[in-house]
Amino acid sequence: MKAPSARAVTVRVQPSPAAPAAYDVVIGAGLLGRIDALIADTAPAAACAVVVPDDIEALYGQPVLAALREAGRRAALFTFPAGEAHKTRAVWSDLTDALLAARFGRDSCIVAVGGGVAGDLAGFVAATYMRGIPLVQVPTTLLAMLDASVGGKTGVDTPAGKNLVGAFHPPRLVVIDPEVLRTLPDAEVRSGLAEAVKHGAILDVAYVDWIRAHADDLLGLDPAAVEHLVRRSVELKAEIVAADPFEHGQRAILNFGHTVGHVMELASGFSIPHGFAVAEGMLAEAAIGELAGITEPGSVERLAVVLRALGLPDRARPFAHLSGSMRLDKKARGAEPRFALLARIGESARNAAGEWTHSVDPRVLDAVSSTLRDV
Amino acid sequence: MKAPSARAVTVRVQPSPAAPAAYDVVIGAGLLGRIDALIADTAPAAACAVVVPDDIEALYGQPVLAALREAGRRAALFTFPAGEAHKTRAVWSDLTDALLAARFGRDSCIVAVGGGVAGDLAGFVAATYMRGIPLVQVPTTLLAMLDASVGGKTGVDTPAGKNLVGAFHPPRLVVIDPEVLRTLPDAEVRSGLAEAVKHGAILDVAYVDWIRAHADDLLGLDPAAVEHLVRRSVELKAEIVAADPFEHGQRAILNFGHTVGHVMELASGFSIPHGFAVAEGMLAEAAIGELAGITEPGSVERLAVVLRALGLPDRARPFAHLSGSMRLDKKARGAEPRFALLARIGESARNAAGEWTHSVDPRVLDAVSSTLRDV
Repeated sequence: MKAPSARAVTVRVQPSPAAPAAYDVVIGAGLLGRIDALIADTAPAAACAVVVPDDIEALYGQPVLAALREAGRRAALFTFPAGEAHKTRAVWSDLTDALLAARFGRDSCIVAVGGGVAGDLAGFVAATYMRGIPLVQVPTTLLAMLDASVGGKTGVDTPAGKNLVGAFHPPRLVVIDPEVLRTLPDAEVRSGLAEAVKHGAILDVAYVDWIRAHADDLLGLDPAAVEHLVRRSVELKAEIVAADPFEHGQRAILNFGHTVGHVMELASGFSIPHGFAVAEGMLAEAAIGELAGITEPGSVERLAVVLRALGLPDRARPFAHLSGSMRLDKKARGAEPRFALLARIGESARNAAGEWTHSVDPRVLDAVSSTLRDV
Repeated sequence: MKAPSARAVTVRVQPSPAAPAAYDVVIGAGLLGRIDALIADTAPAAACAVVVPDDIEALYGQPVLAALREAGRRAALFTFPAGEAHKTRAVWSDLTDALLAARFGRDSCIVAVGGGVAGDLAGFVAATYMRGIPLVQVPTTLLAMLDASVGGKTGVDTPAGKNLVGAFHPPRLVVIDPEVLRTLPDAEVRSGLAEAVKHGAILDVAYVDWIRAHADDLLGLDPAAVEHLVRRSVELKAEIVAADPFEHGQRAILNFGHTVGHVMELASGFSIPHGFAVAEGMLAEAAIGELAGITEPGSVERLAVVLRALGLPDRARPFAHLSGSMRLDKKARGAEPRFALLARIGESARNAAGEWTHSVDPRVLDAVSSTLRDV
């Protein structure tokens, strides 16, 4: 540093010599009933606040509460209205006040039961309650199991956009019980599988091949197949997150399929399920990469084969007319849209500057989009 | 961990191999006018949001804004109503929305100009804006220079209590320009000096002696004396924070004088300035320690001498009738009040279990309090 003034004095402050603690993602059928022992081992807390959306309160909130209380732990249930529309600062504030009124202290933990919204919202309560208390995630959708439970992202939406307010607050423990998937609508199962295809596409060709070979087992929720799927996706995502915990570089490859997918989702008013939009987004972005000479030719077709086997879209709709709204994406605020692109199936591409995202000539976007037709 | 189920699979996630970055507290007369160069070196950002309470907007907000703009940086001013009463989620939300409307992105930083409230509130905006953006602190009160600028605590109050919502979010840089103290009311200067006495009392007897010897220079805001004071207090607090970044142990010694002081402040409806309440609290807690046989006899009198020299209270008022409300303190939620106590001036005491806080027999509190008379 340049000397700011002849008289200036500088004191160096080292906030923490320790790395954030590692945590376990534990996967097994029937774990929900034994959650107290897992919490006792990894997130010791005097009391547990179980936070759950109202639509699955009876199905999964009450059983988790009962399991904790039967083990003698102080626990209470806190519900919020289900749905992304309620992932707001107002609901975060209400949940916080409810915990304060119930006198949950800094020696408590939050157990977030539900899909991505529950994890984001209850996670943000945990991140900010008395400057942060331990979080235990209990994802109940396949997408949340594969994706939202790893990475430490928490947050809420504002009128200006999704996830604009939040914090990085990794859980102390993630408990995944594949049995809960039996009550998940089929479209949500397929939606989750799209995210698993993404993990393979950006990092591991063998995983893509395994998913294709086991498509029927996965769609039928065969326990061994689901367990392998969750495990492998969590391992792959954990690798990326460990390499780039605060999303400054390589973690961008997790956005493959999401730049185009997100604007399709928005344009549909969220009538397209997330994973279906991601499937179309991956096909579009693989085509963009092929035309830009970045992605190995034939990659679009390889992706289409596995997506088709999973009952997901195997072609993308036109998107060029939406490219203006790509600039509204949080990651591209005030700048041109950037794309995470493949080198080939199973491998992500860096640009010439070594970065994991690519700017793309708008004419390439137009050219790719013009070959597509409405779905 | 016990095997949770015969079929359970566990994946270990390591969120970050890297420790949080160290940061500099730069102290020097006239630094406010050169803030852009400091930010360029330590917190590079495309744009700066200067957040300032409305009562010092003209005095310090505009000059900081001008210094940034003259250096060619994109910058804008965001004000909020001055005072602890406005350190709320509503004001945090308004500031966040104002930054979003002005299209500040993840490549921005927040420059918090003001006292403790500005640091806490703007710091919490920085901690949660797009999951965290860099924070630069520009404290304008002596108390904030000595104390609030080190430790990484941010947060807001709720109807249930102070600082119940917040996050640990260390600044990238703290810029301390002692020249701003010339506009600070005398009572606020003395209030800040009480916190410096605390740093000496818990950690460094030589610092207590230096403060007593330089009391007149400090009250007269002699530049060299103020600079040494800020530097030594920041060094001492930084040592403690580095040893215990998330407030799980040793950092509790920073609460010396604050358990009793806080209830006195509350009972007065905040008519007693913070530092004056801490001065009385230190005297009371030193007396508690002496009677409990933990603190060396004569410590109360040594503290009284230095506090008197600084124009601060040299005796405490009765407090036993307030001891019920000590249990309402965040750190003691659901438990008996605990006290950070001295072994002697310059050294904190652990209890028999090696902890840095002590439970005290209520009869000791009553006995100490009964020797005091109203101020």
